[in-house]
Amino acid sequence: MTALDDRSVQPTVTSGPIMGSQKVYREVTDPDSARTLRVPHRRVGLDNGSHIDLYDTSGPYTDTDAAPGIDVHAGLERMREEWVRDREPVDGAVTQAAYAKAGVITPEMRYIAAREGMDPEFVRSEVAIGRAVIPANRCHPESEPMIIGKGFLVKVNANIGNSAVTSSVAEEVEKMVWATRWGADTIMDLSTGKRIHETREWIIRNSPVPVGTVPIYQALEKVDGDPASLTWEIYRDTVIEQAEQGVDYMTVHAGVLLRYVPLTARRVTGIVSRGGSIMAAWCLAHHEESFLYTRFEELCEIFRRYDITFSLGDGLRPGSIADANDEAQFAELRTLGELTHIARAHDVQVMIEGPGHVPLHKIAENVRLEEELCGEAPFYTLGPLATDIAPGYDHITSAIGAAQIAWHGTAMLCYVTPKEHLGLPDRDDVKTGVITYKLAAHSADLAKGHPRAQEWDDTLSTARFEFRWQDQFHLALDPETAQSFHDQTLPAEPAKTAHFCSMCGPKFCSMKITQDVRRYAEENGLSTVAAIDKGMRDKSEEFADRGKRVYLPMAD
Amino acid sequence: MTALDDRSVQPTVTSGPIMGSQKVYREVTDPDSARTLRVPHRRVGLDNGSHIDLYDTSGPYTDTDAAPGIDVHAGLERMREEWVRDREPVDGAVTQAAYAKAGVITPEMRYIAAREGMDPEFVRSEVAIGRAVIPANRCHPESEPMIIGKGFLVKVNANIGNSAVTSSVAEEVEKMVWATRWGADTIMDLSTGKRIHETREWIIRNSPVPVGTVPIYQALEKVDGDPASLTWEIYRDTVIEQAEQGVDYMTVHAGVLLRYVPLTARRVTGIVSRGGSIMAAWCLAHHEESFLYTRFEELCEIFRRYDITFSLGDGLRPGSIADANDEAQFAELRTLGELTHIARAHDVQVMIEGPGHVPLHKIAENVRLEEELCGEAPFYTLGPLATDIAPGYDHITSAIGAAQIAWHGTAMLCYVTPKEHLGLPDRDDVKTGVITYKLAAHSADLAKGHPRAQEWDDTLSTARFEFRWQDQFHLALDPETAQSFHDQTLPAEPAKTAHFCSMCGPKFCSMKITQDVRRYAEENGLSTVAAIDKGMRDKSEEFADRGKRVYLPMAD
Repeated sequence: MTALDDRSVQPTVTSGPIMGSQKVYREVTDPDSARTLRVPHRRVGLDNGSHIDLYDTSGPYTDTDAAPGIDVHAGLERMREEWVRDREPVDGAVTQAAYAKAGVITPEMRYIAAREGMDPEFVRSEVAIGRAVIPANRCHPESEPMIIGKGFLVKVNANIGNSAVTSSVAEEVEKMVWATRWGADTIMDLSTGKRIHETREWIIRNSPVPVGTVPIYQALEKVDGDPASLTWEIYRDTVIEQAEQGVDYMTVHAGVLLRYVPLTARRVTGIVSRGGSIMAAWCLAHHEESFLYTRFEELCEIFRRYDITFSLGDGLRPGSIADANDEAQFAELRTLGELTHIARAHDVQVMIEGPGHVPLHKIAENVRLEEELCGEAPFYTLGPLATDIAPGYDHITSAIGAAQIAWHGTAMLCYVTPKEHLGLPDRDDVKTGVITYKLAAHSADLAKGHPRAQEWDDTLSTARFEFRWQDQFHLALDPETAQSFHDQTLPAEPAKTAHFCSMCGPKFCSMKITQDVRRYAEENGLSTVAAIDKGMRDKSEEFADRGKRVYLPMAD
Repeated sequence: MTALDDRSVQPTVTSGPIMGSQKVYREVTDPDSARTLRVPHRRVGLDNGSHIDLYDTSGPYTDTDAAPGIDVHAGLERMREEWVRDREPVDGAVTQAAYAKAGVITPEMRYIAAREGMDPEFVRSEVAIGRAVIPANRCHPESEPMIIGKGFLVKVNANIGNSAVTSSVAEEVEKMVWATRWGADTIMDLSTGKRIHETREWIIRNSPVPVGTVPIYQALEKVDGDPASLTWEIYRDTVIEQAEQGVDYMTVHAGVLLRYVPLTARRVTGIVSRGGSIMAAWCLAHHEESFLYTRFEELCEIFRRYDITFSLGDGLRPGSIADANDEAQFAELRTLGELTHIARAHDVQVMIEGPGHVPLHKIAENVRLEEELCGEAPFYTLGPLATDIAPGYDHITSAIGAAQIAWHGTAMLCYVTPKEHLGLPDRDDVKTGVITYKLAAHSADLAKGHPRAQEWDDTLSTARFEFRWQDQFHLALDPETAQSFHDQTLPAEPAKTAHFCSMCGPKFCSMKITQDVRRYAEENGLSTVAAIDKGMRDKSEEFADRGKRVYLPMAD
């Protein structure tokens, strides 16, 4: 009996399309295998008859006919199973990096290219040089391929996982579905409590996005929470157990060296990474380098067999503004750079985790050094928080840093919820954290000039300008909240087409005048400012004719 | 009978200290007048016996003995009345700029210096060259002096005001008290509905912070909402009416020139400023430049008599990402630059309003151009929003831009609430908006290296590291929310001193180990990393002695 046969677990997952959207699958043919790839998008239909297709992470749960027929005991369709089965290893390696280096464009790469609106060859070349990674364990065939790299859309990770204090298996499955519904590109299962293996099995079998873990957490459970009792053998067996389940990327704190620990002694907040503190404790207890560092090549060989991506952990990241960019942090980063090159030599994909708490003026240096030391491996940062003084609002303090660091080149952002530093996020916190990070990521996509990013902003702003309220709501990252905020002041149905809102009222709406100006220009075929200026003079007379009212009655 | 005699208005205002804080007044002597200035601070007392004094905008409402004795019918104490009365004009001018240029350090400047921890002579010199302004109408003696300039703490403005749709006088007074309680440095009364004069009177008489307005809104009410019917005389009389009431700064959209209006015709969202659209409508209707522009010097003479500060409005600011940094926006900015120099020649203080909606990579240019064209007059921006796609979360999209632009030199940020683009903010939205902007402003203070900014972060992070939970809550921008989030998972009183929290539980807390490391180092008087490293080896043995447990039981 597998975990999913356990009928005592009855997850109820959210399903059905997002308000105002429908799921569409665009079909792409893979010329090598002649397979048809079905690439998901969130299509927002507009009142003016057009539509826009947005990147979609939510899996089959948002299919139009999904509600309520999803059987979580069956798990998702194993879409990638044949792809994985049918291809030959390259020099014994089955990783996306190995194929990319050999010049092979995998179905995953074609799928990603269609998702991102990029050329498949660009996807391949970015993976080949290690500037992008495709986390896709061969044992997680249910996942929809996605890519993490500075040349692509900035991605967002959401952490879930039960702890000793709260949460059940069913709750965690729903949190995964919920987080991906709002846009989480990957999720990390950070469970530390009971039923850790079963929880993960449920999550992976039902997850349309890559799943990451920190294996040292489960290893620590196996030694009853005593870091000094950890051994390579216990850790290795835990990694293999998780690899077989299909974990797509694993955080490994292999850069915490013994000699770096004293560098944290004068810090304001010392070591704030769980994994970092576990490994520091091990190093202190044994007074030698950790097995993560000394056995790193053996770990690479395991990762290579499954195509697991390294997420090299920043165990010494700063936990406060005072500790940002210090010697402990950058010493570890240099070691992560060495490990990156070792992993790449094994054809294993690598990304690098980053801080944490960093003031705005010290953010760019983090990206510059990471790229220099780690051969441009994708950077994956937690925020960073731009100040420490706002517990309860750290989704915002960190979104400020996250947008900034992503603009400079961070490829994936780990979300922070309003409960950071204070407690465990609930369902609402998960949604708030994901939406906050999606808007930060999109702000960076705009600043980086991603070819398809601004279309979304322009479509929404045009709807706003044209008083297409429903379109504005449907185009929002969170349509339900946008509409409910509007309806708190003007709930009646006619307000959805009104040419004003409660902010300024009908007399003070600033958007109407430009509509008049523009309509006039278009009707008269004017194409230059000088010509429009002529139009202005006519317009002046027209205004007088209308009784000098700019804002016509609503019925107009 | 004045407005405040009207007993049908019964504002109930929030009073009493912020949780965990007490109001203290530091006494400073003004050597010129021998007066004692009482400068307010929010003092947070800590469990370890120390305390920190924070900048405080909340006025007497948070005095320890304030609750519930504040009589809003009496108005606040007229602290500045004597200061204003006793000083001689300089060449006929009574503005802070005139005194500063004459080398006079006013009591307002000394008060500000004590508030900000700066030298009084620095305050004077910044005002003299126009790089900072002190909005302080002689007719608003109740206000506590404050300064807006890039050399000082970044300030936050909160907009309040009734509209035709909702809100009463009493509600607006409470919104003012509420917004300043959470840190609003100025408030703008943007009322457009009924009882506009009375609402403003109530607000000003009870406001400890400068009050700004947009006089064209009231002028438009006087002509029944028809922009084309506006005249210089109606506008002038409105300005004088508001000046006599004590409005400290006024937004004037004098840069909207006739020839700029066609530049907005091809925009995605045209003109989105209310004042800008009113003036554009006037220009179109009359086909000539507005009276704000043609009568600007007369306006300067009025402002000069009261010491009202110009806030030169950006009527053509971009309302979408697509329209950022376009010719319409920068054409108007050049005109604002010309007007700045005219106002300064009249010894009138000036700040410049800025956008709006701007992607991250176009933010710095806004500051650079503003400083170049407007002689470094303080920049006062609305956000900007870094993306358009998140209605319902625009306090966050705009905080991302606000932190960025303030780091580059913006002196004051106009807040944005979660209801932006959707509806009118309620009490909770006002608080969320203010707290969000305070953390954005503080992030910029850190990045700019304000001498006292980081002390707050370090004090809070030290409390966090030392598991002083109550201190962490009390030091937060919003202590109540921080504590309530913590208590949702661990409500019991012992959890307030526990050496762990619900996030990781007792076994996984990363903060404990560094405490051990640091304590050891201090006890042994070790001062270099090498010496600490020696300590590490001893520590290794000590760990073994303790049974290799890093995390000791709570009772330890």
